[in-house]
Amino acid sequence: MPHITGYDVFDVRFPTSLTADGSDAMNHDADYSAAYIVLTTDDPAVYGCGFTFTIGRGNEVCAAAMELRARPLLGRDIDAVCGSLGGTYRSLKQDSQLRWLGPDKGVEHLALGAVMNAVWDLAARRAGKPLWRLLADMPAEDIVDAADLTYLSDALTREEALEILARLAPTRGERIQQLTESGYPCYTTSAGWLGYSDEKLRRLCQEAVDQGYRHIKLKVGASLEDDIRRLGIAREVIGPQGNLMIDANQVWDVPQAIDWVKQLAEFNPLWIEEPTSPDDVLGHAEIRRAVQPIGVATGEHGMNRVLFKQLFQAGAVDYCQLDACRLASVNEVLAVQLMAAKFGIPVCPHAGGVGLCELVQHLSIFDFIAISGDLTGRVTEFVDHLHEHFVDPCIVRDGAYVMPANPGYSAELKAQTLQDYAFPWGDYWAGTDAGRAEQEWRTGSAGRGIAFAGARAKAEA
Amino acid sequence: MPHITGYDVFDVRFPTSLTADGSDAMNHDADYSAAYIVLTTDDPAVYGCGFTFTIGRGNEVCAAAMELRARPLLGRDIDAVCGSLGGTYRSLKQDSQLRWLGPDKGVEHLALGAVMNAVWDLAARRAGKPLWRLLADMPAEDIVDAADLTYLSDALTREEALEILARLAPTRGERIQQLTESGYPCYTTSAGWLGYSDEKLRRLCQEAVDQGYRHIKLKVGASLEDDIRRLGIAREVIGPQGNLMIDANQVWDVPQAIDWVKQLAEFNPLWIEEPTSPDDVLGHAEIRRAVQPIGVATGEHGMNRVLFKQLFQAGAVDYCQLDACRLASVNEVLAVQLMAAKFGIPVCPHAGGVGLCELVQHLSIFDFIAISGDLTGRVTEFVDHLHEHFVDPCIVRDGAYVMPANPGYSAELKAQTLQDYAFPWGDYWAGTDAGRAEQEWRTGSAGRGIAFAGARAKAEA
Repeated sequence: MPHITGYDVFDVRFPTSLTADGSDAMNHDADYSAAYIVLTTDDPAVYGCGFTFTIGRGNEVCAAAMELRARPLLGRDIDAVCGSLGGTYRSLKQDSQLRWLGPDKGVEHLALGAVMNAVWDLAARRAGKPLWRLLADMPAEDIVDAADLTYLSDALTREEALEILARLAPTRGERIQQLTESGYPCYTTSAGWLGYSDEKLRRLCQEAVDQGYRHIKLKVGASLEDDIRRLGIAREVIGPQGNLMIDANQVWDVPQAIDWVKQLAEFNPLWIEEPTSPDDVLGHAEIRRAVQPIGVATGEHGMNRVLFKQLFQAGAVDYCQLDACRLASVNEVLAVQLMAAKFGIPVCPHAGGVGLCELVQHLSIFDFIAISGDLTGRVTEFVDHLHEHFVDPCIVRDGAYVMPANPGYSAELKAQTLQDYAFPWGDYWAGTDAGRAEQEWRTGSAGRGIAFAGARAKAEA
Repeated sequence: MPHITGYDVFDVRFPTSLTADGSDAMNHDADYSAAYIVLTTDDPAVYGCGFTFTIGRGNEVCAAAMELRARPLLGRDIDAVCGSLGGTYRSLKQDSQLRWLGPDKGVEHLALGAVMNAVWDLAARRAGKPLWRLLADMPAEDIVDAADLTYLSDALTREEALEILARLAPTRGERIQQLTESGYPCYTTSAGWLGYSDEKLRRLCQEAVDQGYRHIKLKVGASLEDDIRRLGIAREVIGPQGNLMIDANQVWDVPQAIDWVKQLAEFNPLWIEEPTSPDDVLGHAEIRRAVQPIGVATGEHGMNRVLFKQLFQAGAVDYCQLDACRLASVNEVLAVQLMAAKFGIPVCPHAGGVGLCELVQHLSIFDFIAISGDLTGRVTEFVDHLHEHFVDPCIVRDGAYVMPANPGYSAELKAQTLQDYAFPWGDYWAGTDAGRAEQEWRTGSAGRGIAFAGARAKAEA
């Protein structure tokens, strides 16, 4: 019987800060990165790839946490691991010592998500299906068993979750057919990074419109004057009927958010995204009441299902932007999608970064097929960066994600990418001052890091 | 001029799981641990010690994060670092790449807190004062500058914070005198761990009463039948007038918490602690409405100031149990103490574990001296474990913390403790199966962990 025989973890970083890709009012120098894990088995053809997305420093801390989270998988029978994806998730999550470091948030939660993303990829590859299809072929009971419903019973019971899935089960095939023909609608953020010039902004907005996008998102929050000028350009290009979204990336306090957004209302934004702290449920509710009809969107930093439960209960959001890596993999995403369906909130997943588009296409497709059954008000983010590093990159045509057809979760990075961009030893980084400085730090400091503590204590003994 | 010349980080773990110390309904096998850092300077007599508390696995991940967080301090002038403790905090916190891993929660936040705890210890040692005195001697403007008020302006403005401090400034001396005579009141949890037998429970409760404690806390939530029996024993020993608190350590969903607590109401508990997810502000508010007059207490897993802001705004808690390590050091604790004062919520800090008692005594003493000015309904946790490992352990007499007199934050571990309990290389662990297995894993896996990713990528190149 095949078993999980090992795993390799990689700290992969891309120098995106050099071109201001991904620049916004909070994040000025993001180096898009992935803490990446490959689960290996005694069959070289059977493996699973998963990752969490970060923006640079600290990616190695996630990698270290992932090694610890994956350890209990070593030696396990693949049939058992893939046969109960809820059971596997619970067995990794239940470690009470690691739980203390969250619970269900921060580095440890990102690490659990990355490892379970690899398990879901493994399960889908073994089934010979893309992840969305693996899920679409699961009976409602198995989907609910996989969903992490802990701490949610005051908002969604297991019975309610089963009812939501049962309602759409008979017609899943129709929606698969529909998406196969039209794809899943997406919008682009590639145009609106804060670091881009007005000319580049205008050109990219026009390109987006020409490519069939009906939604464009701009970063705001650094300068009100600049925001007004840039929104004017975007609105001019996209026209009065186009959907214009704005994203503040958490730079405001609640009163400031209300004041600032009201001054941008003339451009008729569809939503204001991340107006304040992602943890502030009551703050988002207050902002939503104050700026309507402008919608409030948040979720890319939504730490776990309990936060989303409260956002729904408090009437704090119009759009749920869950993140495929911030949440603890498909297991927790399913719980949030099911709650969103009950509360009637459209799920418009966050994407971009490294590989998030590859993951969320599966999640949005399954959401429509089996949970929401509705595309109204739903549009999934797409950012045209770094897809060339993936073996099975997402495909976007006419402003829509094309249904993935290959087995797995589309999470596998190319071997050449690992060779070039592993930090700090990869070929690219070895040729940079930043990479060489980091190499010198790690080697020169003789075992700094995890091994350091014990080694030093021993030396002093 | 003296500079910060380096730092040593240690992964220190104690085998507390062997005796069921610290056992509760959520945490069955806690090995109390500290990810510990010592900041060194060019003057051997000038250093700072800080730590975060964990319960075992993952302590090394915190250690790795602390190394990254402390790195910007290297080479900095000590006068500048200690001269603006708010500025130093902001300079470490503002790293937007590390912020992505939270923000303000989980391992990265614990690491920021541990490093800043060491900075506060350094500042107090340099001033030749215990931390509480360093704070008590600071003008209101400096205290407010040190407090992290970001995202709080809808609940507490800088002006309101200054008013709270100004109100009590003229009478700080009187309260210092009062505490010097009577100490700061505390309660004990040592009696009530879930893993203890009824006989041990009865004996420890009696000892606590004999030692002058008027509050006793029991762990609940694993078995209703056991809880009823154990609460009966404790109530019998402490008598009808004694204060009995119960702690569920997050094991319940909201409806279950309400049902369970109502069945324990006959024992007249003062508060139910951590009835559900620490993130569930709305859930705590609902539980509080349902179980009153029993109070609701939470905070030891309160991830940051934004969570506490909402707990206060929603009327979700009767007692604020902030944690000296879960929050990002004194800087964030000050913000929560100031908010609690405005909302009239008593702060009863969480303690126990490793060294939390040593830290919180300073925080509670300063809270009374300068922020709350009131002892009504206030009692700080004390657990009589592991104090022997500290150079300057806290002293409890007649159910009260005795005012610390030595310079610093009482955070320094003994050299012998590092030699014995550094994991897995320390002398104690080297003599155990667990320690030897971990040593074999770390060495045998040849650089697993932070160094592994790059090394493997290089090998494949």
